Amino acid sequence: LEEFPIRTYRLALVGFGNVGEEFVRLLLAKDSVLQRDYGISWKLTGVASRRIGWVADANGLDPAAALDHRWPQPQATKKPAYVREWLAAAQADVLFEASSLDRRTGQPAIDHLQAALESGAHAISANKGPVVHAYRELRELAATRGRKFFFESSVMDGTPIFSMFPHCLPAVDLRGFRGILNSTTNVVLTEMEKGATLEAAVKRAQEIGVAETDPSDDLDGWDAAVKVAALAIVLMGAEIKLSDIEREGIRSLTPELVRAAHSAGMRYKLVCSAERTVNGVRARVRPEKLPMADPLAQLEGTTSAVRFDMDVFGLSIIEHKPGVIATAYGLLADFIRAVKS
Amino acid sequence: LEEFPIRTYRLALVGFGNVGEEFVRLLLAKDSVLQRDYGISWKLTGVASRRIGWVADANGLDPAAALDHRWPQPQATKKPAYVREWLAAAQADVLFEASSLDRRTGQPAIDHLQAALESGAHAISANKGPVVHAYRELRELAATRGRKFFFESSVMDGTPIFSMFPHCLPAVDLRGFRGILNSTTNVVLTEMEKGATLEAAVKRAQEIGVAETDPSDDLDGWDAAVKVAALAIVLMGAEIKLSDIEREGIRSLTPELVRAAHSAGMRYKLVCSAERTVNGVRARVRPEKLPMADPLAQLEGTTSAVRFDMDVFGLSIIEHKPGVIATAYGLLADFIRAVKS
Repeated sequence: LEEFPIRTYRLALVGFGNVGEEFVRLLLAKDSVLQRDYGISWKLTGVASRRIGWVADANGLDPAAALDHRWPQPQATKKPAYVREWLAAAQADVLFEASSLDRRTGQPAIDHLQAALESGAHAISANKGPVVHAYRELRELAATRGRKFFFESSVMDGTPIFSMFPHCLPAVDLRGFRGILNSTTNVVLTEMEKGATLEAAVKRAQEIGVAETDPSDDLDGWDAAVKVAALAIVLMGAEIKLSDIEREGIRSLTPELVRAAHSAGMRYKLVCSAERTVNGVRARVRPEKLPMADPLAQLEGTTSAVRFDMDVFGLSIIEHKPGVIATAYGLLADFIRAVKS
Repeated sequence: LEEFPIRTYRLALVGFGNVGEEFVRLLLAKDSVLQRDYGISWKLTGVASRRIGWVADANGLDPAAALDHRWPQPQATKKPAYVREWLAAAQADVLFEASSLDRRTGQPAIDHLQAALESGAHAISANKGPVVHAYRELRELAATRGRKFFFESSVMDGTPIFSMFPHCLPAVDLRGFRGILNSTTNVVLTEMEKGATLEAAVKRAQEIGVAETDPSDDLDGWDAAVKVAALAIVLMGAEIKLSDIEREGIRSLTPELVRAAHSAGMRYKLVCSAERTVNGVRARVRPEKLPMADPLAQLEGTTSAVRFDMDVFGLSIIEHKPGVIATAYGLLADFIRAVKS
C-alpha cells in the first residue's frame, strides 16, 4: 500500500557471541523483506567484543567476513570509554547491546547504551541488567535525545512483552503477572522428576546447551529475579530494586520431594510473580507445587510463559522452545520499531 | 513524560446490545486515564440500533441516560442509508460497529463502516463479517481517506492479535496457526464429557449465556470458520473466501465418542487451523481428538487460545474466560490506536 524511500542505517554491535552472530545472520536473511516492507537498508559498521576488540568502519564491514571472524585489521581491546570513539568511527545510527551480563550492576551494558543515546543513536539491549538498574535514566535520556531505548529480547527472547503493553494493551490496569521465565530450572526439575539428582540434572541441562558452566544464577533464582524486576519496573511502574525481589531458588528441592509431587499429580516449577498491593508491587521467585491443570505446570524444557492479570481480562503468552534466533529476532523487531515509529 | 493537548472526539455507536452498553460503561470508567495518559476526551454523539433507531446529537448525548435507555426524543428506525445522515448529525470522528452479524454477507456492518470512512471518521468494528467479506476494500478506503479501519475485538475479544502482528512481530513469516476460537462448542464438549447429550449440553451453554438461542452457527462450525477466515485473510494475506474454509461442526460427535476419548486421556475440541501450502493458504475447522498434553486440550469453558507458528519461533496467546468487558476493551484499544497513531 505504501511506498517508502529506502534509508540505510549504520548498525553497531557490542557482544558478538551466539546472539550477536545470529542477529547478523538474521539481518542477512531478512534483507529483502526489510527493504520491501519497511524501506530499511543497513550496513554493519561496528562490531565489538572482548575477544575481537573494537572494530569499526563507517563504510561498512562485510557481514559474511564478520561471521567468519575475518576482520579488516587486528584490533586491540581498549578501555570501556573507547565505546564513544568506536560509535563515532562507526557513525552508528543504532547500537545493539548483547554483551555478557553483570546482573549486580548492569555494567558495562549501561555505559554502552548511554554512550549510544548521547551520540544520537538508538539503543537496543538484549541485556536485562540495564533495565533493572537504569531503566528510568536511559528512558529519559532517550526521550531527551529523540531516540529509542528498547529491550524486547531481554526477558522473553523474541516474544513481544514490552512492545505489547503500550501499543496492544493501552489503558489497562495491570494488577499482576505470574510465569515461568527461567529455562534451566525448568529442564532441571523435569530431569529430577525422572529420578535424577540435582547434580545429574544440571549436567544434563548443560549437555543440551541450556545451563551455563556455572549454573548458580539459575539455580539460586537470580536470573528469574532479574526478569521479574524488569517486568515489574517497566510494565507496572514499580519502584523496586533487584534486592527487593523475594527470592528462593531450587536447591532446597530434593529428588524425593520432586518425585513425590509428581506421583501426586503435581509439579514443582520455579514461579515468577508480581502483584500490586497497598504497599506497592510485591515481586518474588520461588519453587511452587502446581496442580497439572495449571497451564504453567504443562511447560516443558525451554518453553516459557507468563500470564498477565488485568482489570479487563487475563492474557497468557507462551513462547515455544525458542532458539537463539528468537533472541536475535527480538533485536531485529526493536530495530524496525525504533526507526519506523 | 509527555504532555498532550487534550482533544475531544465525537463517538458514534451502531449496535447497543451487551457490547455497545459495556463499551459506554468502559469509556466512563477509563475517562480520567484516557485524558491523563493519552490526551483523549470523548463525547457520545450518536447511538443507533434496531430498537432505538438513529439517535444523534453533536453536542453530546448523556452516557448515563443512554445506558438507562432514556433518549432525547423518540426516534423512528429509518432505512439503512440513513447512516450517512446520522453520522453527519453526530459529527462523528469515530464509528464503532457492534450490530448483529450476518456472516453470509457482512451486512449491514460493511455499509456502516464504509459510510463512516467516507465521512472522514475512523471505522472500528466488533464484527468479523466485514473483515471476511470486505477487508481489502475497507482497508484501501481507509488508507485513501487517511483514517483507520480496525477490528481487534472481532475474533478474540480484547486479546491483541491484529494489532500485535504489524507492531510487535514485524517482518516475521507466519506459516500457520492453530487454535480454539469458539466458546460454545468448547462448553458443549466439556458437558458431553460429563455425560450430557448434545441437546442437554447446548441447553447448559444457553443457561450460562454462552450459546445463542439458535446454536447452529456454533455447532456447525460457522462462527469458527468466519474467525479462521478473518485471521487468514489479514495475518497471512490469504486470498480466501468463507466458502473456501473446510468446515466440519460437532454434530457428528456422540456422547459415546466424546466420553471414550476422555477415558483414553484425550479430548475432542473444535480446532481452527490454517497453514501456508504451495497452493496457497489451507484453512479449516473440524473436531480433533487431542492428547491432554496438547495445551489446547486444557482449555475450559470460554477460554480461547491460538498458537502462531512463525519462522523465528512459536507463540501462543490465551485469553482467560473473557467477559463482555473484554470485547468492549477491544473497541477501546482500537479507538486509542486509531486516534494516537
